[in-house]
Amino acid sequence: MSYAVLGAGALGGLYGGLLANAGYDVHFLLRSDYEFVREHGLRVDTPLGDFHLRTVNAYARAEEMPQVDVVLVCWKTTQTEHLAAALRLICRSDTLVMVLQNGWDVERAAADVVGAERVLGGCCFLCSNKVGPGHIHHLDYGRIAFGEYADSLRGSISERMLRIAADLARAKIDIQPAKDLRAMRWRKLMWNIPYNGLSVVLQADTRQIMTDPHASLLAEELMLEVREAAAACGSAIEASHITKMLDDTRKMVPYDSSMLLDYRAGRPMEVESIFGNALRASLDAGYRPAKVEMLYRQLAFLNVHRLA
Amino acid sequence: MSYAVLGAGALGGLYGGLLANAGYDVHFLLRSDYEFVREHGLRVDTPLGDFHLRTVNAYARAEEMPQVDVVLVCWKTTQTEHLAAALRLICRSDTLVMVLQNGWDVERAAADVVGAERVLGGCCFLCSNKVGPGHIHHLDYGRIAFGEYADSLRGSISERMLRIAADLARAKIDIQPAKDLRAMRWRKLMWNIPYNGLSVVLQADTRQIMTDPHASLLAEELMLEVREAAAACGSAIEASHITKMLDDTRKMVPYDSSMLLDYRAGRPMEVESIFGNALRASLDAGYRPAKVEMLYRQLAFLNVHRLA
Repeated sequence: MSYAVLGAGALGGLYGGLLANAGYDVHFLLRSDYEFVREHGLRVDTPLGDFHLRTVNAYARAEEMPQVDVVLVCWKTTQTEHLAAALRLICRSDTLVMVLQNGWDVERAAADVVGAERVLGGCCFLCSNKVGPGHIHHLDYGRIAFGEYADSLRGSISERMLRIAADLARAKIDIQPAKDLRAMRWRKLMWNIPYNGLSVVLQADTRQIMTDPHASLLAEELMLEVREAAAACGSAIEASHITKMLDDTRKMVPYDSSMLLDYRAGRPMEVESIFGNALRASLDAGYRPAKVEMLYRQLAFLNVHRLA
Repeated sequence: MSYAVLGAGALGGLYGGLLANAGYDVHFLLRSDYEFVREHGLRVDTPLGDFHLRTVNAYARAEEMPQVDVVLVCWKTTQTEHLAAALRLICRSDTLVMVLQNGWDVERAAADVVGAERVLGGCCFLCSNKVGPGHIHHLDYGRIAFGEYADSLRGSISERMLRIAADLARAKIDIQPAKDLRAMRWRKLMWNIPYNGLSVVLQADTRQIMTDPHASLLAEELMLEVREAAAACGSAIEASHITKMLDDTRKMVPYDSSMLLDYRAGRPMEVESIFGNALRASLDAGYRPAKVEMLYRQLAFLNVHRLA
């Protein structure tokens, strides 16, 4: 199948690069790195085997791109304003759109353009950084767990999911088809909400959070609230998942969350997709997660007024 | 009556200075500023009329102080560990202790030493800074509202309160005897909890908080929780108090809270007396203020791990 990859950062650069390196027909839509990648290609340092793609199908404008079978949405959600125009140009009537962004209901923007039945969502578990233009450093992990977005298709693993999974697996991507995208997203939020949020407000890494009695209790209380929110929205998550995440995070090497890195670099944080959308979904379902709400408001403030 | 004043900062320097300037017998227990004040006295710049007391009864050790009729506790609550030893030395069996510290149940430490029936509590509404050793700059306001601490004496204005009020009024202090110390303290916490807390976590002044839609909503939600906590603890506060505080704060010139100043200067913040004590009182009364609890935990973390 042919692929369009929106963005060539830590996510799109890695997965799109792996697909292209495996010989697939891959087309990248780029912004700031367009000139550099057109001239120098894409370098990926990865435990899967370093490679340098000297020629890359790079585009600055969606108008110039061919229509493809599958679109991988790898932009940050803070750039989603550009999504609709791009999808209208590069999608045929049967093109599938796989949204790899962080947060809750991040597939909605794509579904509004191509229809929910043509949208898939994926959660990425990877440790990867863009260390320079067209240069990705993939450190560890890398799994994509993905599933169908449309209510009508949830609950099973579709034939088209298996086709995509086969392509990605051939490109050495750790890919896991899943029946329940929603539960998967809530599980990821149970980590992202406490650690991304607290890391910014407290200017702390995971170890500082987990070794402080107040901050670690707060992380746990936030997880409990996210679990309640998930339950209210119809996704039951076992209580032991909280214990496991707390234990795993306690054992991790000190880690600065991606939101903390965005904040420190002066980039907009994905506050609405990760916090705002989850909060609103929970409120709509009749449960008010007070601490998640508070963290959301603090981050929304800090997204505008940066710490000195 | 004779007075001992514990501390000569923005609070003790002003009120103790005014009492001494009016001719009362005032004895200051000092720490860092002892040498300076003994040598140079105490300077107070105030809209009430600047004055310079060249000779001050200053002591570095409570052992050297005379016993007095009234003790004014003006230390920060973060120094309360020294209180018991000092009170045991300077109190007779009928000495009254008036606690002017910020927070909830801050009178407890004095009551544990001299008995609740000899303790009064006061809330100070003043804009005053220590600008150097033995040098106080009083900018505006200055009212002390005070009342009886003991359950057995609450609900009325005692004769001894009137005697103290008469002394302080003669010293040009705006003094207001009040029947209900507990309600008064909750009212003050309804401002201190949101604005002191959010100012530190968001590194923001009152104007930045009130002009941001998320932060101002958070301030209001915190006030609602403190009002609920007060009600659970037996103090009913009218809902219009919230509207009034929000309006008043919106109109204020941009103001850095005292907790933000402490934080920026590297001094310990009064997290336990203002947040921890109020939170625990509310939990004991069966109401859990989730956002106050979260702010408490964030501040407790920041009291140890300062922002870079």
